[in-house]
Amino acid sequence: VNTKISKTTSDNLKKEIAALPTDLILIIIDHNISSLYSKVLNLQEIEGKKVIVWKAPDGEKVKNIKEYESCVEYFLDKGIHRKTHLIAFGGGATSDFAGFVAATLLRGIKWSVIPTTLLAMVDASIGGKVAINSKEVKNLIGAFHKPENIWMNYKFLETLPPEEMKSGKGEILKYALLEKSIHDLVIKDAQMEEIINACGSFKLKLTEEDFQETGKRKILNLGHTFGHALEKIYNLSHGVAVLWGMAVMDIIYNQSKNLNVIKELKSKLSIDEEKSPWIKRDFPMEKIIELVKKDKKMVSNFDLEVVVVHEIGKPDLKTVDLETLANDVSKVQNELKNLSL
Amino acid sequence: VNTKISKTTSDNLKKEIAALPTDLILIIIDHNISSLYSKVLNLQEIEGKKVIVWKAPDGEKVKNIKEYESCVEYFLDKGIHRKTHLIAFGGGATSDFAGFVAATLLRGIKWSVIPTTLLAMVDASIGGKVAINSKEVKNLIGAFHKPENIWMNYKFLETLPPEEMKSGKGEILKYALLEKSIHDLVIKDAQMEEIINACGSFKLKLTEEDFQETGKRKILNLGHTFGHALEKIYNLSHGVAVLWGMAVMDIIYNQSKNLNVIKELKSKLSIDEEKSPWIKRDFPMEKIIELVKKDKKMVSNFDLEVVVVHEIGKPDLKTVDLETLANDVSKVQNELKNLSL
Repeated sequence: VNTKISKTTSDNLKKEIAALPTDLILIIIDHNISSLYSKVLNLQEIEGKKVIVWKAPDGEKVKNIKEYESCVEYFLDKGIHRKTHLIAFGGGATSDFAGFVAATLLRGIKWSVIPTTLLAMVDASIGGKVAINSKEVKNLIGAFHKPENIWMNYKFLETLPPEEMKSGKGEILKYALLEKSIHDLVIKDAQMEEIINACGSFKLKLTEEDFQETGKRKILNLGHTFGHALEKIYNLSHGVAVLWGMAVMDIIYNQSKNLNVIKELKSKLSIDEEKSPWIKRDFPMEKIIELVKKDKKMVSNFDLEVVVVHEIGKPDLKTVDLETLANDVSKVQNELKNLSL
Repeated sequence: VNTKISKTTSDNLKKEIAALPTDLILIIIDHNISSLYSKVLNLQEIEGKKVIVWKAPDGEKVKNIKEYESCVEYFLDKGIHRKTHLIAFGGGATSDFAGFVAATLLRGIKWSVIPTTLLAMVDASIGGKVAINSKEVKNLIGAFHKPENIWMNYKFLETLPPEEMKSGKGEILKYALLEKSIHDLVIKDAQMEEIINACGSFKLKLTEEDFQETGKRKILNLGHTFGHALEKIYNLSHGVAVLWGMAVMDIIYNQSKNLNVIKELKSKLSIDEEKSPWIKRDFPMEKIIELVKKDKKMVSNFDLEVVVVHEIGKPDLKTVDLETLANDVSKVQNELKNLSL
């Protein structure tokens, strides 16, 4: 399967779904999206299809085994078959969750996504990484399962809360460090739609070349090693956590060489974020190591892989053991303490 | 990945595991096997490896979301990494469950199987179909995830309860209907080890050619459409349910042409099973349809796929709608009522 990303409108969407080769559609819809859009975009009635809808608690709250069980048993109880098509309608958490449901129902059914947040449009909905969270750490339970279609409708961004716009922009900034052409688009104030498009194509290509993340797909984890831990410790939005994760990596492994680039991109993207969450205090390295140990980047009992960008568009993978990492952090404790962007 | 099936001994097994390219081994072991073999075959101590063991409730009891959650959180809490290798040590239920854990931990880690029952040796451990059960129906939640190694040690059969031997023989009988060379081995009283070997190779080849069951792998579902339902209704062992499932299919779609072959194979394999579970009563078609509707063989809201063997070694796939199926059953109600093997 190769994923097809296509622009669509509310009118068109119902036609796209009606054209799917199945008689049964399952929809997992974010609770907020359901409240906001169920009148304008009623997907319960699709010509020629039986439609079963499961409303997901909004955001990350859906991504646990309890909700997984409740959703899966709900669909199974209604009766489904191998050719059922599942649609995820919401942000990144909704599509992560729905994709995992699609990956595991009847050992895998087809699915598509209608991303409704900036983060989902540029990142989460693309590439078939699907997951729920374990009790302590994000995305540890999951699968690789590509969606058939990603239906992009930029209209949804009009009702997106500012905090979620910021989160999406954090991931866009990541792409701008990984890929020179995206960097240039941001710098020259290109339209948001054009930037979203470029990020999507970049990620789609990379994930098609290395679907199961055995090689170059790993560069997409830039900022995520520390990001996931910071997200948890300070309750940050995902993209903002990744932003700080990238800044920290640059300080540790790159003598702050890219900090000015990050600042410039941040300003171009109007990301309203200045002082680090730990400002004036010690960087929380112990807590981070505790969390990193349980994250997916570990490749042995002691080593993990990190991504470092020495030059814009030229990311590198680096294997480092936890002790060395803690040591390297202690050397830049002062820079970290006073970090602002 | 292609699965390697190899014969092994208790001594050799520890060397095989020690040679795996990882520093962390997870073991999911059936509770009974643990009691019987933990002294003779202690896998807790493997040179150069950290080993984490989770004991599974015996048999099918492990295959639900609650146990899945408890197992996954147990391993994650201990801390695991991408190169972790999981080993399933037990019967078919244990390997179904462990394979699903391996498929979904960190989006998939490598795994191997030490099958301890006849059913697991000839069928369940091979081919990478892994699953747990939903509240009502078997194997509805799962994935395709091939093991790296299947380590065969026929010694385990010496402590296998007769009911479980019978269950494994039911699946062997299925292979004998699907593949002429296996049929001939059984008829000429070949050694059990040779028969197990032939069944394993046959299934391995088929599942490598059609891993995700889009085509010819489906023939392995012979007897399973009714089998799964009968297993549930009469609390039969899996292989015995499949045996009755095959007999019923032969009566409905093949004018009982193969019943004598089934009887002969049954006698050669010393399967001690004569009267159908519903003997002298009406065949429980309503209950069966209710369960079949929720099974994985449905391909639309009304149609399912069934396997029919007109001639030994020549299975066919057939799509049939539920109403026609119920009708066809009513035509042979008498034969079914008096069925014995």
